[in-house]
Amino acid sequence: MKNLRLDLSYLGSGYCGFQKLPGKVTVQGTLEQELSKITGEKVKIVGAGRTDRGVHAFGQVCNFLTESRINPPAFQRALNSLLPESLRVLQCTEVPLAFHARRDALAKSYLYVVETAAISSPFLAPFTYHFPYPLQLAAMREALLSLLGEQDFRTFAKAGIYSGGTIRMLRRADVIARLPLLYFLLEGSGFLQHMVRTIVGTVLEVGRGKRTVEGFIQALRAKDRTVAGPTIPPHGLFLVGVLYPNG
Amino acid sequence: MKNLRLDLSYLGSGYCGFQKLPGKVTVQGTLEQELSKITGEKVKIVGAGRTDRGVHAFGQVCNFLTESRINPPAFQRALNSLLPESLRVLQCTEVPLAFHARRDALAKSYLYVVETAAISSPFLAPFTYHFPYPLQLAAMREALLSLLGEQDFRTFAKAGIYSGGTIRMLRRADVIARLPLLYFLLEGSGFLQHMVRTIVGTVLEVGRGKRTVEGFIQALRAKDRTVAGPTIPPHGLFLVGVLYPNG
Repeated sequence: MKNLRLDLSYLGSGYCGFQKLPGKVTVQGTLEQELSKITGEKVKIVGAGRTDRGVHAFGQVCNFLTESRINPPAFQRALNSLLPESLRVLQCTEVPLAFHARRDALAKSYLYVVETAAISSPFLAPFTYHFPYPLQLAAMREALLSLLGEQDFRTFAKAGIYSGGTIRMLRRADVIARLPLLYFLLEGSGFLQHMVRTIVGTVLEVGRGKRTVEGFIQALRAKDRTVAGPTIPPHGLFLVGVLYPNG
Repeated sequence: MKNLRLDLSYLGSGYCGFQKLPGKVTVQGTLEQELSKITGEKVKIVGAGRTDRGVHAFGQVCNFLTESRINPPAFQRALNSLLPESLRVLQCTEVPLAFHARRDALAKSYLYVVETAAISSPFLAPFTYHFPYPLQLAAMREALLSLLGEQDFRTFAKAGIYSGGTIRMLRRADVIARLPLLYFLLEGSGFLQHMVRTIVGTVLEVGRGKRTVEGFIQALRAKDRTVAGPTIPPHGLFLVGVLYPNG
């Protein structure tokens, strides 16, 4: 028995999210299907982050157990030859049997890309959210800074019950402007469902002057989804990477 | 009656090419349909270049005649609000009644993008041809240089009869490397069907050492499609722009 780690990049557009769903094309389902062809086993993939439908990844991490003797580079080549071009295995490495892609993750980083040009580019549209309004960068930065540290992020989470609670630790929350594109970068111990998309949706209201920085901070403190802004579309969101104790 | 020029950008992936085809989604068909809604007239679009199925455009040029009193910026806004995000009107301007997007074009420029990385990016795959082999840049440049000037390009054209003949004038034929991407740039008086894709497909054989530069020049002089290399896929090709007497 060995434990293999896969580092993946995917274009989320064609997938109903990461997690397996009967009758739907998902990242996990597609991977398990091809891995079963390669190994002849019923393979079960564990992913670090369950990205939602339409969300992309530059550096998703997964692992799976196998009895197969195929070496990791050969696994990578075999998978890349079978998988669609929208899903690529960037790396395949053998890891200790105890490694668990989700439970061992220390932090994750996400990127949300907003296009502010009056006319969106047909080539960027699949990966960016078109928001053609003048935005106040300094106010957005200030709102983002208020998110740093350990806090209750219930305001920005999809309404519902979270067995692990709604407290998370953010250590980066910033926006970089390379006009007409804005890159929102969030890094933290973990993220609740819809959290990045609702944070950026609410920060964009601050950018347009529809909400003050103080109003944003009050919303965060209210721990109430109804006071946040909109959950903006998934196609602007990327899971950039996952951090583990050994890098 | 007025004559309006449209400058278009489109992601070719979802279209069966530029030219109208009954029962198919094409760029011309989509534009004419939305223009008819806006004007209430039966609008006929003339395009500068009939891009093939799957080919993209940064700067396609079209024109159409209309009795509508809507001003050009309002036309642009109305079209962009009705068209899918994969097709954008970059500019709409009134031009002299005699302007004809195809007949008046002096030159066109095309770009073909090749990705040479071992593992292709899911985000670039829709716009690049994956060709993960070491390539000799100097030999490819030399082969491309042999294409300059007025020549018979029958070797690189789709087999068939060309009522306008197969002689064209190229004034730029180059490749720029920004590894892992290669950008092939061709500019000339006009292009035969499949000409750019077959030129680049044959130049890539020179790059891999499967064909000498002399062999490439002999193929050009043979005026025979059967001695050229493969016609590589349309999704790496972009119509960059069209040149007219007044710019």
